[in-house]
Amino acid sequence: MAQGLLIELREPVHSLPYRVLYGDTDKAGVVYYGTYMRLFEAGRTEYLRDLCGMSYAGLEEQGLILPVTEAYCRYKSSARYDELLEIQTAIEKITKVSIRFNYRIMHQDRGSLVAQGFTVHAAVNPDGRLTRLPESIRKLGANK
Amino acid sequence: MAQGLLIELREPVHSLPYRVLYGDTDKAGVVYYGTYMRLFEAGRTEYLRDLCGMSYAGLEEQGLILPVTEAYCRYKSSARYDELLEIQTAIEKITKVSIRFNYRIMHQDRGSLVAQGFTVHAAVNPDGRLTRLPESIRKLGANK
Amino acid sequence: MAQGLLIELREPVHSLPYRVLYGDTDKAGVVYYGTYMRLFEAGRTEYLRDLCGMSYAGLEEQGLILPVTEAYCRYKSSARYDELLEIQTAIEKITKVSIRFNYRIMHQDRGSLVAQGFTVHAAVNPDGRLTRLPESIRKLGANK
Amino acid sequence: MAQGLLIELREPVHSLPYRVLYGDTDKAGVVYYGTYMRLFEAGRTEYLRDLCGMSYAGLEEQGLILPVTEAYCRYKSSARYDELLEIQTAIEKITKVSIRFNYRIMHQDRGSLVAQGFTVHAAVNPDGRLTRLPESIRKLGANK
Repeated sequence: MAQGLLIELREPVHSLPYRVLYGDTDKAGVVYYGTYMRLFEAGRTEYLRDLCGMSYAGLEEQGLILPVTEAYCRYKSSARYDELLEIQTAIEKITKVSIRFNYRIMHQDRGSLVAQGFTVHAAVNPDGRLTRLPESIRKLGANK
Repeated sequence: MAQGLLIELREPVHSLPYRVLYGDTDKAGVVYYGTYMRLFEAGRTEYLRDLCGMSYAGLEEQGLILPVTEAYCRYKSSARYDELLEIQTAIEKITKVSIRFNYRIMHQDRGSLVAQGFTVHAAVNPDGRLTRLPESIRKLGANK
Repeated sequence: MAQGLLIELREPVHSLPYRVLYGDTDKAGVVYYGTYMRLFEAGRTEYLRDLCGMSYAGLEEQGLILPVTEAYCRYKSSARYDELLEIQTAIEKITKVSIRFNYRIMHQDRGSLVAQGFTVHAAVNPDGRLTRLPESIRKLGANK
Repeated sequence: MAQGLLIELREPVHSLPYRVLYGDTDKAGVVYYGTYMRLFEAGRTEYLRDLCGMSYAGLEEQGLILPVTEAYCRYKSSARYDELLEIQTAIEKITKVSIRFNYRIMHQDRGSLVAQGFTVHAAVNPDGRLTRLPESIRKLGANK
């Protein structure tokens, strides 16, 4: 894996603040490694809403489902209880039938990197078959 | 609330072992208070399977849904990472359209009480309307 | 339990918006019943920060821990994916060594009740022994 | 990323059954993508206990902490509520200061692949500094 590629976030980048809950942490006093998948989800949902004017809930109602086919996270430093994080999300690549988001989780105060990763999603219809992404989404990746 | 009633578990009592995961704990080093709702769910599911010969998944397929209408937990002592717990589950009461389970979470080694509580469930059909519990379930509460 | 008392939220009431994640839901298409404990936690944390000027993280650093001793939730209607909820939190009662928060989860758009409940917390020191709540907190409950 | 490498599980392979809870699923009716990180955790914990005779809790008590530095999952098919899964875990590689586990999540009944992935862990001491893995662990990877 070309690790350097991971941390690249292509414009536009969406930023979402997140306050760490007790329930996000584990006995090591830091955010549990699985919790980051929730943060990634929050990031891409608000990316679609704020930058694309579309809600993922709305896409599903129209019959477009985007299940995760791959997820990756690399952990750089710890995030602790009550810290304010920034979830940065960008679209990395769009093909006819898939979309990849990149993420960075930052400490909002310190500006330091906590974790980074990506998710890849297939475009499927309610029957579970691969389907073409609509033009409204594909154009988001026009220059990528 | 008559607190004394809570800890009563009417026979038959179902017992399910559970090993505490890192992901169940929080920064206090103990099981997060919300995690117990998952343990209660595991307890009542296996109660139905082992003592009643019915899977909750199967009930849903037949059109009977049992959403939680009330949940309560009282925390007595802490459960820590990697400890082996015992989830004790019993049916407390069955009416025509509802069922209540009582739970105790115990330290398997020490035999001491960690937490106890209850959940109440309504019987509804897929349209969300109250429906009568089938006789096969109602007889479970015959003597209660 | 006098159920009517539950829904009373004494002033001041804190309001926190919350957007439902996919990860909060379950296969019934609604927010999992255990997820509400996270929402309650978010509510009381921001209540302390916004209305009392104290962070729970800061209290812990000063040696005051407030573990949950009781939690209760009554579920009224379903909350679905991507819906915007409002977490309403109020202090119900403060004694020398305990504090109780009441909560209501509302649909922000419809203004309808989703769930309501409470948590009770003991005041303990890092050794786990009951300790007196500081005056700064006790005065929050002066008229309750 | 050489995708073919992922699915290889070097002997010995540890097998752990897991029953899907309601709380593991999301509104799509399948196991939430973040839940798999919990399953991976359960897998590697029991691998250490059953095949190496060491509990991760015990390692921590001795001052060896193994935080996750990378996590990856590729999702092949859906796992549904109440299905019985098999968590297969193997050690892929051990260096002086790191360890990598590979995982496969299988449908126990059908024998089909649900998901596969890996986690990489650094060996650190309680101060957070890289430390050498003890010989008892390093020998597990002698032939890898």
